[in-house]
Amino acid sequence: MKVLRSPKIFQALMDRERGRARTLGFVPTMGALHEGHASLVRRAKKENDLAAVSIFVNPLQFGPKEDFSRYPRTLAADMAVLRKAGADYLFVPKAEDFYPQGFQTSVRVGREGVSGLTRGLCASARPGHFEGVATVVTKLLNLSKAHRAYFGAKDFQQAALIERLVEDLSLDIQIRVCPTVREADGLAMSSRNRYLNSEERSRALALPRALSALKRALEEGRPLGKTLRSARRSLEAGADRVDYLEIVDPGTLEPLKRPRALMTAAAACRFGKTRLIDNVSIRISQTRRK
Amino acid sequence: MKVLRSPKIFQALMDRERGRARTLGFVPTMGALHEGHASLVRRAKKENDLAAVSIFVNPLQFGPKEDFSRYPRTLAADMAVLRKAGADYLFVPKAEDFYPQGFQTSVRVGREGVSGLTRGLCASARPGHFEGVATVVTKLLNLSKAHRAYFGAKDFQQAALIERLVEDLSLDIQIRVCPTVREADGLAMSSRNRYLNSEERSRALALPRALSALKRALEEGRPLGKTLRSARRSLEAGADRVDYLEIVDPGTLEPLKRPRALMTAAAACRFGKTRLIDNVSIRISQTRRK
Repeated sequence: MKVLRSPKIFQALMDRERGRARTLGFVPTMGALHEGHASLVRRAKKENDLAAVSIFVNPLQFGPKEDFSRYPRTLAADMAVLRKAGADYLFVPKAEDFYPQGFQTSVRVGREGVSGLTRGLCASARPGHFEGVATVVTKLLNLSKAHRAYFGAKDFQQAALIERLVEDLSLDIQIRVCPTVREADGLAMSSRNRYLNSEERSRALALPRALSALKRALEEGRPLGKTLRSARRSLEAGADRVDYLEIVDPGTLEPLKRPRALMTAAAACRFGKTRLIDNVSIRISQTRRK
Repeated sequence: MKVLRSPKIFQALMDRERGRARTLGFVPTMGALHEGHASLVRRAKKENDLAAVSIFVNPLQFGPKEDFSRYPRTLAADMAVLRKAGADYLFVPKAEDFYPQGFQTSVRVGREGVSGLTRGLCASARPGHFEGVATVVTKLLNLSKAHRAYFGAKDFQQAALIERLVEDLSLDIQIRVCPTVREADGLAMSSRNRYLNSEERSRALALPRALSALKRALEEGRPLGKTLRSARRSLEAGADRVDYLEIVDPGTLEPLKRPRALMTAAAACRFGKTRLIDNVSIRISQTRRK
């Protein structure tokens, strides 16, 4: 696995590989890698000649009170994970090279709090977060020159926003959103899980449990409003704070009042100081909708 | 010259040419082509194996009271200009294909009216204009897959903004800003010149004349403030309205109070309903600065 620090050199190298008719898969990460990331790298490698990974803890997507400075940095362990998963290139830029002096460009999807994919869900609790994500992802995808890029479905709103911006700005890359990888007990894997103490870790199961109860109830034909209220109550019982639990249209992310054939239930809540997110897809047959 | 309507097909074709190790030069335009555009296409063709041109009157960069609907559309004449200049590909998308349904992404350079390259000059009179320009240019450059893109120096703030966004978002393309082409009497060529009636056309010379008088005076070592005030008076005497006449740092576009080795004098003013812009570079030796 070749490790690159310089954005320009990484891009030139990827362009050269592409010029040799090699297909490139790209997995942008913030490091602190777990099995969820490894599964993305394996898939990138399976579907392309070469797999490139980036590790960059992007300051733009953290709010002033968020965990940027304490976000886990575990480069040695990450490199072992990536070698095992078959990565060919690792791009680890320094922030000062990544955002050059005078940097002043941003990419925005929707109008935060007003319309589009950044009106609700995580946008409310994390102002500016998605503008930071859209900007860094646009730049990383441009640097990667890849044919395909891989993202986890756990970051559901992020994935929707990335699919949207790639289409809107005509980035020449295919976005693959891959299934959430879970611990044996159902908790979605996340770099932030390591913040949890053991008491919080056991309460954190309230999150996947509320979502799967909601999924089951709706797929059995229960009414949406009542089921959602009941799931919220059970999540509130386990979490220290619930930022949201919503059932939304997976295309527009608009909250739904009545069941549809395809919906997403998404939630964010806190256990201690740790904010976790998760979501599930819900598919119900025509006859079951109420 | 091959003409393409579909964004996806244009991009796929350019990617294929690039995969064949052909270098690509790209000239994005809004049509109504004149000798200024032709000079960009000739240069693109000279510096690359292939030259591609786009014609797209971008609705995003026009304000509600601006000339979007009456902006000249002269496709047949444009095609003749492009064939003569040596263009290999012409991309002419329809607006509904270019901006897909649900389009909601925008690119912003600086904070309009607050900081960065979109604080002053044309940004004040044209709110939202540069966000529309940044968005369409990002998308066009992505579609073009080109190695080099060519812009005219007349659109000075636009050129600065494009160089900035290409660096900030790591677009893999080189930006070439090419000299303004002028009519014999000094008026900068512009698609909007055809709006001028003959009386306005002769008064429009006040614009290049004020700028060249300013350049001459400063290069002769005259003091900046007084020279600028005098140039403003002479421009006001010829124009129906002066949006601005400024001497700025060509890197930051900040107005200058004292001479520098390298400056740009830029102006926008109206003749009748027609808004024209122009600029000149000013270079003075160390000993002449006051």
